[in-house]
Amino acid sequence: MPRHPAYSGLAAHFERIHRLRHAAAMLAWDRATMMPPGGSGARARAEAEVLGQVHALLADPDLAPRLDAAAGEDLDDWQRANLGGMQRQRDEAVRIPAELVARRTLVNAACEHGWRQQRAANDWAGFLPAFREVVAVARDEARHLSAGATGGAYDALMARYEPGFSAARFETLFAPLVDRLPDLVRRARLPARAASTLPASCPVPRQRALCREIAALLGFDFGRGRLDESAHPFTGGVPGDVRITTRFDPADPLAAINSTIHECGHARYVQGLPEAWHGQPVGEPRSFGIHESQSLGIEMQLARSPAFCGLLAPLLAQHLGMPEDPATLHAHLTRVEGGRIRVRADEASYPLHVVLRFRIERALIEGEIEADDLPAMWDAGMAELLDIDTRGDYRDGCLQDIHWTKGAFGYFPSYTLGAMVAAQLFAALRREHADLDSRVADGDLSPVFDWLATHIWSRASRFDTDTLIRLATGQAIGPDDYLRHLERRYGEAG
Amino acid sequence: MPRHPAYSGLAAHFERIHRLRHAAAMLAWDRATMMPPGGSGARARAEAEVLGQVHALLADPDLAPRLDAAAGEDLDDWQRANLGGMQRQRDEAVRIPAELVARRTLVNAACEHGWRQQRAANDWAGFLPAFREVVAVARDEARHLSAGATGGAYDALMARYEPGFSAARFETLFAPLVDRLPDLVRRARLPARAASTLPASCPVPRQRALCREIAALLGFDFGRGRLDESAHPFTGGVPGDVRITTRFDPADPLAAINSTIHECGHARYVQGLPEAWHGQPVGEPRSFGIHESQSLGIEMQLARSPAFCGLLAPLLAQHLGMPEDPATLHAHLTRVEGGRIRVRADEASYPLHVVLRFRIERALIEGEIEADDLPAMWDAGMAELLDIDTRGDYRDGCLQDIHWTKGAFGYFPSYTLGAMVAAQLFAALRREHADLDSRVADGDLSPVFDWLATHIWSRASRFDTDTLIRLATGQAIGPDDYLRHLERRYGEAG
Repeated sequence: MPRHPAYSGLAAHFERIHRLRHAAAMLAWDRATMMPPGGSGARARAEAEVLGQVHALLADPDLAPRLDAAAGEDLDDWQRANLGGMQRQRDEAVRIPAELVARRTLVNAACEHGWRQQRAANDWAGFLPAFREVVAVARDEARHLSAGATGGAYDALMARYEPGFSAARFETLFAPLVDRLPDLVRRARLPARAASTLPASCPVPRQRALCREIAALLGFDFGRGRLDESAHPFTGGVPGDVRITTRFDPADPLAAINSTIHECGHARYVQGLPEAWHGQPVGEPRSFGIHESQSLGIEMQLARSPAFCGLLAPLLAQHLGMPEDPATLHAHLTRVEGGRIRVRADEASYPLHVVLRFRIERALIEGEIEADDLPAMWDAGMAELLDIDTRGDYRDGCLQDIHWTKGAFGYFPSYTLGAMVAAQLFAALRREHADLDSRVADGDLSPVFDWLATHIWSRASRFDTDTLIRLATGQAIGPDDYLRHLERRYGEAG
Repeated sequence: MPRHPAYSGLAAHFERIHRLRHAAAMLAWDRATMMPPGGSGARARAEAEVLGQVHALLADPDLAPRLDAAAGEDLDDWQRANLGGMQRQRDEAVRIPAELVARRTLVNAACEHGWRQQRAANDWAGFLPAFREVVAVARDEARHLSAGATGGAYDALMARYEPGFSAARFETLFAPLVDRLPDLVRRARLPARAASTLPASCPVPRQRALCREIAALLGFDFGRGRLDESAHPFTGGVPGDVRITTRFDPADPLAAINSTIHECGHARYVQGLPEAWHGQPVGEPRSFGIHESQSLGIEMQLARSPAFCGLLAPLLAQHLGMPEDPATLHAHLTRVEGGRIRVRADEASYPLHVVLRFRIERALIEGEIEADDLPAMWDAGMAELLDIDTRGDYRDGCLQDIHWTKGAFGYFPSYTLGAMVAAQLFAALRREHADLDSRVADGDLSPVFDWLATHIWSRASRFDTDTLIRLATGQAIGPDDYLRHLERRYGEAG
C-alpha cells in the first residue's frame, strides 16, 4: 500500500494527460514547420480531437473527490505543489464546456492558417471574418472562466499565462514604463547610434549554419531538440525534445540571429526542467512571464553585453564572410530605431509595443471595441506611444503577430513582465558574480547557466511566481532594475 | 431523424478514431525523420497513449449493440462495406487486451530505436535481447487473435495485412516462383547484362532535387504531401498530407531514385482515395498487398519500361551531370545481380527474398524456431534460394529490414502478392491501351494513372481483394501474368 494512494493515482492520470499534450505539441510544431497546405483541414480536426481527449481527462467527474482525498495525504512540498497544479488545471477545464474547446481549436486553426497568406497580402478584409469568430470564442471562453471569480473577463484569460496576476497589477507595473520610455526612445534614436556594417544580403544556408553554431554556443542540446524554420519563431515540443524555430530574411541576418538567441533562452529553461518531474504539472515552466524572463535574459541581458558581442563577432565573420568588430556589433545590436514590428523592435521600444497590445486586447475582450475597430485603435496607439504612422499597413501593423490569430489573448503582458524579471535576475546574478563580464569574454557562460539552472530552471513550478523571484533575487517583482538597465544602456545617447 | 441513426453514430465514432490515428501517424513519421535521440522515451509513451485511446474507442462495449443495430438499417453498398470494416476493426481490437497494446508499442519502439544503431554496427548480440521481447509480444498477440478462429497463429497476424488470405494460400501462390525463379536468376545474372555508366559518387543535394522532380513527374501532389529522408523509406501520413521518405547513398543514386518511384506509387494510391470516405474504414486502402501492387506497378511495370526510361534519362543527365542514353539506363535498371539486400534486389530475385522471410516469420510465430535461431535459418535460406553466403553479415543479412524490429510479422508476403497483382493490373491496362508505350514515351502518363484511379484508388475498401482484382482485370489472382512478365524481361538473357 503506497503512502499516498490518491496522490499516486492522480500522478499517473496527469502523466497520461502529458502524453496526449506531447502529441498535440508535435502536431502543432509540424503544422507550423512541415505540413503542406492540403493537410490543414484534417490536422485541425486531429488536434481538436487530441485536445478534446485532454479536456475529457481533466474534466473527469471522478477527479474532484480524488483531489480532495489526496489533499488529506502525507505529501512533501513538491508533491503538494504538484497537487496544486493539478487542481488549477482541473478547475480551468471544468469551467470550459467540451463543445467550446473543440470549437476554439477549429476556429483558431482556421484563422491562423488563413493569416499566413493574408498577412503577406496586407489583407485585413480577408482576415476579418475568421478573426471575428476568434474574438467571439475568446469572449465566450472569458465569460466561462470568470463566472463567479473576483477578476474581470480579461483577467481570467490572462491568468492562464500569469497565475496570480491581474490587469490592474500590470497597469501599475507598466505605468512607469509608459511615463519614461517614449521620451527615452525619442532621445536615443536621434541621432542613429550606429550604421550597419552587415552585408546587404546573406544567403539563407549560411545564416542557418551560423544559427546552429550560436545555439550550440548557448548550450542548446541538439540531442534533445531541433532548430527549424517557421513564419513566426517559437519554442515547442517537450522537455526531452525541444523544438525551436527561427525565420531567415536574406536582407537581415540579425533577425534570425536574435530570434535564435531568444528561443535558445526558452529552450534552455525547458531542457533544464527537473527530469524527476517531467510530465507532471509541478514540472512545467512556472508561467509565460518566467519563460520570457529566460529568453529575454539570454537575448537582452547576456547576448547584448559587450562581452558576448566579443564571442559573436568572430562567428559572424566566419559564416557571413565579413569583418565585424565587437564594438560595432554591440552598437548595432543596441541601436534604437523605434520601428513598427514588435519582434524586431529595439529593447527600449519593445515594452511600448506590449502596452499597445495590452490595451487593445483588454478592450476587445471587455467588449469596449469590436474586431472591426482594431486597426483604428492600433494606429492611434502607435502614434501616441511610438510616434509612428501605421495607417493602411496591416502586414506590419495589427496583422504582424500570430498570437491573436490563435486566440492567445492575455499573453502579451508576459513579454514585458519577462523583460522586467530578466533585468532583476541578471542584477542579482551580477551581485553574486562580479567577474561575470570577464568570464563571458573568455567564452565561459557557465556562471549564467548554472545560476539560472539553480534559481529558476530546476525549480519549475515548485513556487508561485512572486516567491520564485523573491527567492532568486531577494526582492519583489518591480520595474526598478529594468528601468535602470534601460537608462544605462540607452539613456546616455540622449 | 436520419434514415440510419445507428450507422451515422458509428460513422462519427470512427471519424474520431481516424483523427487519433492521424496524430499517431504523424508522431511515427516524425520519429523516423525528425526526432532527436533524446525524444525517444517520451515519444514511445506518447504514441502508446494515443494508440491506447484508439484501442479504447474500438473496444468500447457499446459498439457491439450499435453495430448490430446498424446492420438492420437501410444502407447503400458503400455504407454496408463501411460497416463491415468497422466490424473487423472492432473484432480485432477486442481480441487484444489493452495492456498488450501498450506493451507492444513500447517494446517495438525500443527495439526499432536500438536497431538504428545496431544494424550499422552489425551488432546481432546487441539487438537480440530487445528482439526476443518483440517476438514474445507478437506470439502473445497471435495467440489472442487466433483464439477460436479457424487459422493458425501466423495466419492471424497475416490477416491484419491481407484480410481473406492464409499462409496456405500464399504457399500455393508462391510455389511456382520457388520452382522457376532460382533458375531464372542464375541464368540472367550470367553474364552481367550492363555495366553501370553512372558516376561513382553523386552529391546528396543533387539526388534530392532529382527525386523531387521524379515525384512531380509521377504526379505526387506536393500541396498534399512531403518527401523527406529516413533510414528505411516508407509512406506515412494521411490522405490530405501524405509523407513519403527516401534515403540517399552518395555511391548509389539509383537507390534513392527507385525508392522514390516506389513510394510515389503508394502515395498516389493514398492521394487518390475517395475524399467522401476519408476517415472511414471503407475509405482506407484495401490491403497491404494492394498497396504494394500500386508501388510495384509504378516502379516495376511503369518505370522500368523502355518508354519511361526515355523520360528518366534526360533527368539523370540534367541533375547528375552525366550523359545516359535510355537503352543503357533500361539495361542497368533491369540488370539481375542477385544481391543480399531486399530493398535493392533486382525484380527477379525479390520474390525469393520474400519467400525466405515468409518461411522464417511463420516458423518464428508458430514456435518452430526461436529469435536466437534467426541468423542460422537466414543463412541457410539465402544459400538455398539465392546461392549467397551471408554468414556473419547481420547488417545486410537478417538485420536489414525494419519490419520485424517493430513486430510487423506477416507483412512480407504482401510484397510479392503486390508484385503479382501489379503484373495482372498492367496486363489488363495494356489490353485496354494498346498504345501505352508510345503515350508514355511522349510523356503522357495519364492512361496509367486514370486507369488505376478508376479501378483501384477510387474503390478504396469497397470490395474484398479478390473481387477488386476480378473487377479490374476479369481474372482471379494468380502467378501467370507475373511469371510471363519476368520471363519476358529476364528470361531472354539466359
